[in-house]
Amino acid sequence: MGGDFGPAVVIPGAAKSLERHPELRFVFFGQEDKVLPILDRYEKLKKASRFVHCDIAVRMDDKPSQALRQGRWKSSMWKAIEAVKNGEAEACISAGNTGALMAMSKFCLRTMADIERPAIAAIWPTLRGESIVLDVGATIGADAQQLVDFSVMGAAMARALIEVKRPTVGLLNVGVEEIKGQEEVKEAGRLLRESGLPTLDYEGFVEGDDLGKGTVDVVVTEGFAGNIALKTAEGTAKQIAEYLRAAMSRTVMARIGYLLARGAFNRLRDKMDPRKVNGGVFLGLNGIVIKSHGGTDDEGFAAAIDVGYDMVRNGLLDKIETDLQSFHGRRARDVAFKAASAQTSG
Amino acid sequence: MGGDFGPAVVIPGAAKSLERHPELRFVFFGQEDKVLPILDRYEKLKKASRFVHCDIAVRMDDKPSQALRQGRWKSSMWKAIEAVKNGEAEACISAGNTGALMAMSKFCLRTMADIERPAIAAIWPTLRGESIVLDVGATIGADAQQLVDFSVMGAAMARALIEVKRPTVGLLNVGVEEIKGQEEVKEAGRLLRESGLPTLDYEGFVEGDDLGKGTVDVVVTEGFAGNIALKTAEGTAKQIAEYLRAAMSRTVMARIGYLLARGAFNRLRDKMDPRKVNGGVFLGLNGIVIKSHGGTDDEGFAAAIDVGYDMVRNGLLDKIETDLQSFHGRRARDVAFKAASAQTSG
Repeated sequence: MGGDFGPAVVIPGAAKSLERHPELRFVFFGQEDKVLPILDRYEKLKKASRFVHCDIAVRMDDKPSQALRQGRWKSSMWKAIEAVKNGEAEACISAGNTGALMAMSKFCLRTMADIERPAIAAIWPTLRGESIVLDVGATIGADAQQLVDFSVMGAAMARALIEVKRPTVGLLNVGVEEIKGQEEVKEAGRLLRESGLPTLDYEGFVEGDDLGKGTVDVVVTEGFAGNIALKTAEGTAKQIAEYLRAAMSRTVMARIGYLLARGAFNRLRDKMDPRKVNGGVFLGLNGIVIKSHGGTDDEGFAAAIDVGYDMVRNGLLDKIETDLQSFHGRRARDVAFKAASAQTSG
Repeated sequence: MGGDFGPAVVIPGAAKSLERHPELRFVFFGQEDKVLPILDRYEKLKKASRFVHCDIAVRMDDKPSQALRQGRWKSSMWKAIEAVKNGEAEACISAGNTGALMAMSKFCLRTMADIERPAIAAIWPTLRGESIVLDVGATIGADAQQLVDFSVMGAAMARALIEVKRPTVGLLNVGVEEIKGQEEVKEAGRLLRESGLPTLDYEGFVEGDDLGKGTVDVVVTEGFAGNIALKTAEGTAKQIAEYLRAAMSRTVMARIGYLLARGAFNRLRDKMDPRKVNGGVFLGLNGIVIKSHGGTDDEGFAAAIDVGYDMVRNGLLDKIETDLQSFHGRRARDVAFKAASAQTSG
């Protein structure tokens, strides 16, 4: 029911994704008078899905606390997340209210052992392919341990998504030497360097311009800076597209040139298409939840479903759990070892 | 002596700026064997300038503390800043080491009364013209009062630069409702709303994508997020330029189209040219210091000089001082008034 267009985008999006992955099965949660008339138009999808009516739908401007109060146990958003908890679904995809989706996901699915805070991971198009950037807005601020957990989870996601064995990880930081970094970022760097994790390659600090370059596979930061970086990049891309449009329609010559180079412009549009990398992945929960951009169309929503499909097929949750256990187990052993040595020497 | 190219960019840049502003006069500080051979090639500039030899030059990778220790009193960077302090120059322009330039500027010029921390303000090209964004990296973190001071200083700079009477000001924040904003950002918003300053219009929170849109004249944030936003935007612009270049050279048709639309592409390149908005302005010091991008060419360095010229001509320092006094005076009166009322009622 969520997003700017509700089922008018969700249902056609699911139909698109089903074309690509015929083994997919859907459960739709929503208001029947809004969902069923649209679903009726998609024969194949209808056969591959089940519909559950819910009276209540979380609104886009509900505060998370309000959504929880009014929509827990019964709203379509809650029911969709609950389906993941019950094992009825392997992933929940929503274009709805981000804050409410995160609050309900935390409440319903709970965070994994060792994880204090979930993060939202974005897939970022770069000059070298795709990177993963997290946290892009689940919570403001993060201490060193949380940044390390984000690194471990982001690397697990990279292995599930872009299929690299040891993804490279960088901590987002600023470049001026003396003031280099918030204390927690420095400390996280130290922890990552010392941990010698076999599942990732820690490459040190990266800066804002490394995001577009694709310097590392996983860029880790806390949610305030991450959200601002994400939206700044989106805004800059729109700004340049607008400059380009204005420049290309200004003279007859430019318009002819544009027509001749249309193929190239289409390629560029394709490269810059935000729908292709739609889908923020909630990491750190006992279940897969994907947030689609609220303003996207069916193509974009299908991309968010595809991300969920890839995450399930490539065993994202298992990867994260194993990596976290290995990391926290290692740390616990280190601490125990240090304590034992201290005792022996004392 | 600073930047990637030293006097090879600084001297031709000054010559360019002198063409545009024949009333400019320069004092160059640097190593004579490196500066004079280049200066000799510019007759007019040579007549409009004076040269001061300095043995020591701060290196680009010196830490600020190191630069201060080795370069105070005697390096070309120090001498250039000192010229502003002595009234010998009205602005100091450097392409050198940012951290060192800020540390020396603070040490030599001192911060204005009421200002705890200076900020670096960037001029940001937007769809509506230009905005001012600060702090883009002077210091990490800022409390509410510092964000308010940044707002007052940024608005004064907007009045000096883009000549609006009451610039609009927004605080950079993230969009997820419940977690909306760091506490200090919320508190700064409250202070700005209550202050009713006659020199600016506080418009509330803005997000990363508002930067490129030009939603407000002045965007205020602390240096960590500001630096990441700036570099992310630069990186995204480069990334898209690279996509465009690749797309346009891929087929013969695209290449022909490109040739026909060359004028339009030149306009676009012009719009996206980072040299045009080169020059980070240090705000909050008793003097004007402009940091040019280290990697820029003569055109970019000339733009940084032009920014300094505008700031001096439009009385930036006076504007800031007056506004700060008016704001802090107002606050002091409010506090006194509240204290008096409390006494009366008690």
